[in-house]
Amino acid sequence: MIPERLAACLEAQRLLVEDALDRCLPRPEGPAHRLAEAMRYSVFAGGKRLRPALVLLACELCGGDRGNAVPPACAIELVHTYSLIHDDLPAMDDDDLRRGRPSCHRAFDEATAILAGDALLTLAFEILAQPLVSPTVGLSDRAGEDTAGQASRVTVRVLPSWERRAARFVAELARGAGTAGMLAGQVADMAYQGEAPTAEAVDFIHRHKTAALLASSLRLGAIAADAPSERTDRLGRFGEKLGLAFQIADDALDVQATSEQLGKTAGKDIASGKVTYPAVFGLEESHRRARQLTTEAMAELDPFGPAADLLRDLARYVVERKA
Amino acid sequence: MIPERLAACLEAQRLLVEDALDRCLPRPEGPAHRLAEAMRYSVFAGGKRLRPALVLLACELCGGDRGNAVPPACAIELVHTYSLIHDDLPAMDDDDLRRGRPSCHRAFDEATAILAGDALLTLAFEILAQPLVSPTVGLSDRAGEDTAGQASRVTVRVLPSWERRAARFVAELARGAGTAGMLAGQVADMAYQGEAPTAEAVDFIHRHKTAALLASSLRLGAIAADAPSERTDRLGRFGEKLGLAFQIADDALDVQATSEQLGKTAGKDIASGKVTYPAVFGLEESHRRARQLTTEAMAELDPFGPAADLLRDLARYVVERKA
Repeated sequence: MIPERLAACLEAQRLLVEDALDRCLPRPEGPAHRLAEAMRYSVFAGGKRLRPALVLLACELCGGDRGNAVPPACAIELVHTYSLIHDDLPAMDDDDLRRGRPSCHRAFDEATAILAGDALLTLAFEILAQPLVSPTVGLSDRAGEDTAGQASRVTVRVLPSWERRAARFVAELARGAGTAGMLAGQVADMAYQGEAPTAEAVDFIHRHKTAALLASSLRLGAIAADAPSERTDRLGRFGEKLGLAFQIADDALDVQATSEQLGKTAGKDIASGKVTYPAVFGLEESHRRARQLTTEAMAELDPFGPAADLLRDLARYVVERKA
Repeated sequence: MIPERLAACLEAQRLLVEDALDRCLPRPEGPAHRLAEAMRYSVFAGGKRLRPALVLLACELCGGDRGNAVPPACAIELVHTYSLIHDDLPAMDDDDLRRGRPSCHRAFDEATAILAGDALLTLAFEILAQPLVSPTVGLSDRAGEDTAGQASRVTVRVLPSWERRAARFVAELARGAGTAGMLAGQVADMAYQGEAPTAEAVDFIHRHKTAALLASSLRLGAIAADAPSERTDRLGRFGEKLGLAFQIADDALDVQATSEQLGKTAGKDIASGKVTYPAVFGLEESHRRARQLTTEAMAELDPFGPAADLLRDLARYVVERKA
């Protein structure tokens, strides 16, 4: 069960982030309207907004202004969504369903899904560099420009303090999502498919494919708060361990659950020859390892004291919901 | 014929940019080595490095330090390469050949090509935010970190002056490559396919698909030089008009040339029902319009005087080589 205070917090954050996402996504207008439609279809498919919540909680935990965390919270959700769209493509996991609805390439077409993913990734960096969502005074109006149909150049004034942060945000997000992070995990996931699963393989895949972007979520929140690097690194390690625990629990769930419970095809990982933690270590050891990683993640939060309780609740909820 | 001084300049710039690209691309190591291989295969496929040359020339024309223009020159080439990889995919243009070699998804596989494109786009923003290529002291060593196989977090010190520029670079590149630029053109290109071609359609496609990224190349160079916005905008307009002239000449060439001359399938635009300038206005009017746009582009350079001669030579060369 989700604690009441956490549920209320997540719901408020979800509304804030979805409102900001709505403002930064292009409107479906003009000759390229299908691009905006596909982007919005996938972004508003009912995700839990876990990564944005981690950005916002980390920022507040470090004493930062929540407004500064809204652009990176949106950016990481856009990157997460783009990765799901490209993952679902026929050439990749070939998934027809995502969150109980047709996946992007089924609802639109393959070409549009590829380009919508590309566009979400590009937009993620754009809103970090030049927040269409105002970083300090809440959510600004976009005054109708920047739609997919117009290439007009509108110079948006960016505060010097934001420019400093923007460079750090972009570097952090690119590192978590790129060849040192998520993308390396996706390629390794394919490379190991059909091979005898090893501990090294599953660790590399989990660490890159899932944990890297969760670690980046926490680090982005700390950067938004101008936190000292010791705190940023500590929160990053919390995020990485949480990500590993989450992925192991997710693998275990895929073995145990029915399709109805999952909202997607059960047992698909095994059927497709994916390297999973249970395939290497068995179910019991998987559950033990997920619990151990959660404990290790919690230890990283010790110096923050009771201020980190919401983050602790969220960590427990995320792993236990799976386990 | 290409003027000798331009040829020498382009060759020197090509070497500089390819050296920098080699340093910023990940090494093919570890479980995700195919990702780095595919990225390098496509980046080093023998492109002319036109866009990087425009970045470097614009920076020098505005009195900037060439070193500051190397990261955006690399970034725009990475974005150009990613767009070609995704364009060639079976779900898009379905091209087996690119620059006379198998396209990325033919040399590797579709999934790797999709992810290699994603990785190049991500890396483009990463090197703008945190140049792996040192912005002021030439080309720095990367000391072996950041390979695809390692998610280690290395904090690279970035100069405050670079952070200011980084935010502007990222905003400019994202705008040129995203839903207000290149991606809108690609989606419109598909949307209009098979329909009766109109002047509005071909103008929208050319303006977004080709001209937006060329305009961004010039603007990035001006930003690298901290040029006043009047000069940045002027160079951007030069780039946009050059891009339109270039694309019209390219469309005309596709109608006239043989496959041997092109190094790719001739007449493919027409066969695939693409909206082209000659299809709307005929060949003669296309050549006239390309010349007129080149003249208009040149006029934007008037205030720069003889210092812009190399850029003028390049513009003439780019359009005439096609026409």
